Amino acid sequence: MISDKLSHITKTMKSSMIRELVASTRGIEGLISFAGGFPSPKTFPAETLSKLYAQVLAEEGSTVLQYGASEGDPLLKEELQKWEGLQIDPARILITAGSTNAIYYMTRALVDPGDVIICEAPSFLGSLVAFEASGADLIGIPLDMEGIDLVQLQQKVDELQSAGKRVKFIYTIPDFHNPAGLTMSYQRRKDLIEYAIAMDIPILEDNPYSRLRYSGEALPTLFKIANEEYLNDEVVTEIVSFSKILGPGMRLAFAKGSKTLIERMCSWQQKINIAPDNISQRVAARFLAGGFMDPHIQMCCDFYRPYLNKMLDAMAKYLPSYIQYTKPEGGIFTWLKLPEDMNADELFERAKAHKISFIPGSKFYPTGQERYNNLRLNFSFSTLEQIEEGMQSLGKLMDEFYT
Amino acid sequence: MISDKLSHITKTMKSSMIRELVASTRGIEGLISFAGGFPSPKTFPAETLSKLYAQVLAEEGSTVLQYGASEGDPLLKEELQKWEGLQIDPARILITAGSTNAIYYMTRALVDPGDVIICEAPSFLGSLVAFEASGADLIGIPLDMEGIDLVQLQQKVDELQSAGKRVKFIYTIPDFHNPAGLTMSYQRRKDLIEYAIAMDIPILEDNPYSRLRYSGEALPTLFKIANEEYLNDEVVTEIVSFSKILGPGMRLAFAKGSKTLIERMCSWQQKINIAPDNISQRVAARFLAGGFMDPHIQMCCDFYRPYLNKMLDAMAKYLPSYIQYTKPEGGIFTWLKLPEDMNADELFERAKAHKISFIPGSKFYPTGQERYNNLRLNFSFSTLEQIEEGMQSLGKLMDEFYT
Repeated sequence: MISDKLSHITKTMKSSMIRELVASTRGIEGLISFAGGFPSPKTFPAETLSKLYAQVLAEEGSTVLQYGASEGDPLLKEELQKWEGLQIDPARILITAGSTNAIYYMTRALVDPGDVIICEAPSFLGSLVAFEASGADLIGIPLDMEGIDLVQLQQKVDELQSAGKRVKFIYTIPDFHNPAGLTMSYQRRKDLIEYAIAMDIPILEDNPYSRLRYSGEALPTLFKIANEEYLNDEVVTEIVSFSKILGPGMRLAFAKGSKTLIERMCSWQQKINIAPDNISQRVAARFLAGGFMDPHIQMCCDFYRPYLNKMLDAMAKYLPSYIQYTKPEGGIFTWLKLPEDMNADELFERAKAHKISFIPGSKFYPTGQERYNNLRLNFSFSTLEQIEEGMQSLGKLMDEFYT
Repeated sequence: MISDKLSHITKTMKSSMIRELVASTRGIEGLISFAGGFPSPKTFPAETLSKLYAQVLAEEGSTVLQYGASEGDPLLKEELQKWEGLQIDPARILITAGSTNAIYYMTRALVDPGDVIICEAPSFLGSLVAFEASGADLIGIPLDMEGIDLVQLQQKVDELQSAGKRVKFIYTIPDFHNPAGLTMSYQRRKDLIEYAIAMDIPILEDNPYSRLRYSGEALPTLFKIANEEYLNDEVVTEIVSFSKILGPGMRLAFAKGSKTLIERMCSWQQKINIAPDNISQRVAARFLAGGFMDPHIQMCCDFYRPYLNKMLDAMAKYLPSYIQYTKPEGGIFTWLKLPEDMNADELFERAKAHKISFIPGSKFYPTGQERYNNLRLNFSFSTLEQIEEGMQSLGKLMDEFYT
């Protein structure tokens, strides 16, 4: 029996509970969903991509259909550097089949079973399950309004190191955090980098959302600050996804880090995927070279802005006064903090019966470190009318539920 | 320093020696190469694919650019079943980003460090390094003219099991073996399956080449025999790659196996790649639905046949009588067995100086189990004239070298 032969980690690893939650609301007629994390299909540049795919195959078919470099298409690397206004050694860039893919390679490159990965609590579930599947011990550090709590981080690292544990890296989502909707302040970015340099602990900066800013000033990434202000090319590895700007069906992301680490991540890529898809890489290179990217991102921001504004208005108008929430300037999520004794998993069941759905916050914590008094709302999927109506109902439900 | 933090497996894992060998001949002017394993770009259906990519994006852009199912596109699964003339539960099929990717998932699903994987010796290096990166102990079993040597296999398995080792699966490439050019006989296929069922040891059937048959009768795959003749839906997992029929730049393959195993492989896919690229999956579905596949494969076979024939002629004409070789009916490789005391690694250096390149056989064995008196020749890359000229030179070189 094959089921007797499964590896230890396969038998014990968690699956994404979010999938099952979302599945449990499938088929509810008239459901208003704030649960998903999907970009709006209306933002996909399908027409431009259709032309570019056709061109790439017609003009470079014999090149792009052949085996490509495991480290990624050199032309795409060139275009990425121009787009980001960065001049780094191309050997410090790895193209991957999406950002989860790059996160997995970094984890395999660094983590032995029993090693510690520090993450924010809450954090992106997809990464947490990938970390746990490497046999890592995951330790979550709470967020305050400026980002990861550095006092608690330092205490925890000291404690872990005194206990002989190896802390392999700190995982953070500084811009429009999933699920918390927060953006790390400039000062906190610098403090975190200084701490990481002093302690020689690498940082994994997950950056799927920073380009989706609808108001306010963009902050430099941790990668940029570390390289340009601290002249440190090793402490931060940044992973940028194309999923929220081109479309997640096209599996494409890139990682930037130290030459040493990127080389090892590339060895893992060679063993697991051989190389990323050549065709989509060359299409992305042409999308950038053709000047399509910046206007497209502008369009995405213009598209999402009214949804964020509607959600901010609706939260102000309908949520009971004892509910706290983040006020993001971009991304696709906001995060609600409920009173300590209010359980969002129970609220989820109640809301589902009233055809409203969201993700209970407990799903975004490492196993055993769950907190139950918070929840995530997505505002990129429902219509403006649904946001109005859904938030009105949710506010009412909360009051009935809590009092 | 990041180099102090690498995981144990990352520090110890092998890279592909073939890459380095091929790199060592780069820039040699006038080199005749029998080394690579690349399909000929002349076989790529770039024109048809150009149209299909454009159509898929234009007609289904908002679907294919969105997140897709981790198990793969249901439409592609349907077309694959029609193409293969198989009716199995779609939950027994997983689409992946190439066959190495599927091999990695199966390995992660089954293998704990210290477990044993049995492979043919020689075998495909890309799989061997992926197996070794899982911490598996790799045991190679020699091939005879009908395929894997069952007597030696049984002895070895008994020995391993007596020593308390867990044999997790047997890895085989039954059709147009890479590197050996061999095709496993029908009887050996049945004997291997019977043995595997009796011993409850899964088989991983790697099938990148079976469609590239230029003469003779196709044999049923191990998967088909197990399912249809032994009514066993668990013992064989077959992985089919599109790399040699559509083009490896488009990362696409599919695995068929038991529902239990495919489900676990899918969990790994979700953690590592989220899902395969949606666009290329839908394009492949249309390629099959449009009836392009069978004529295209016919064209590939017609294209490669003269190269195989030229290689067979040239081997007969120019190789010294003490060299034995396989006479494949398809695929892209042939395999030479040299006298025991003739070292192909040394011959490689001598040949390189004379602008001829191949892969010494020692590269295709598990670490520590190398054999040095054989070599692999590829016949899908050079021109017919180069095959004639290169084999004439190689034959002469062998005689000078050996006598």
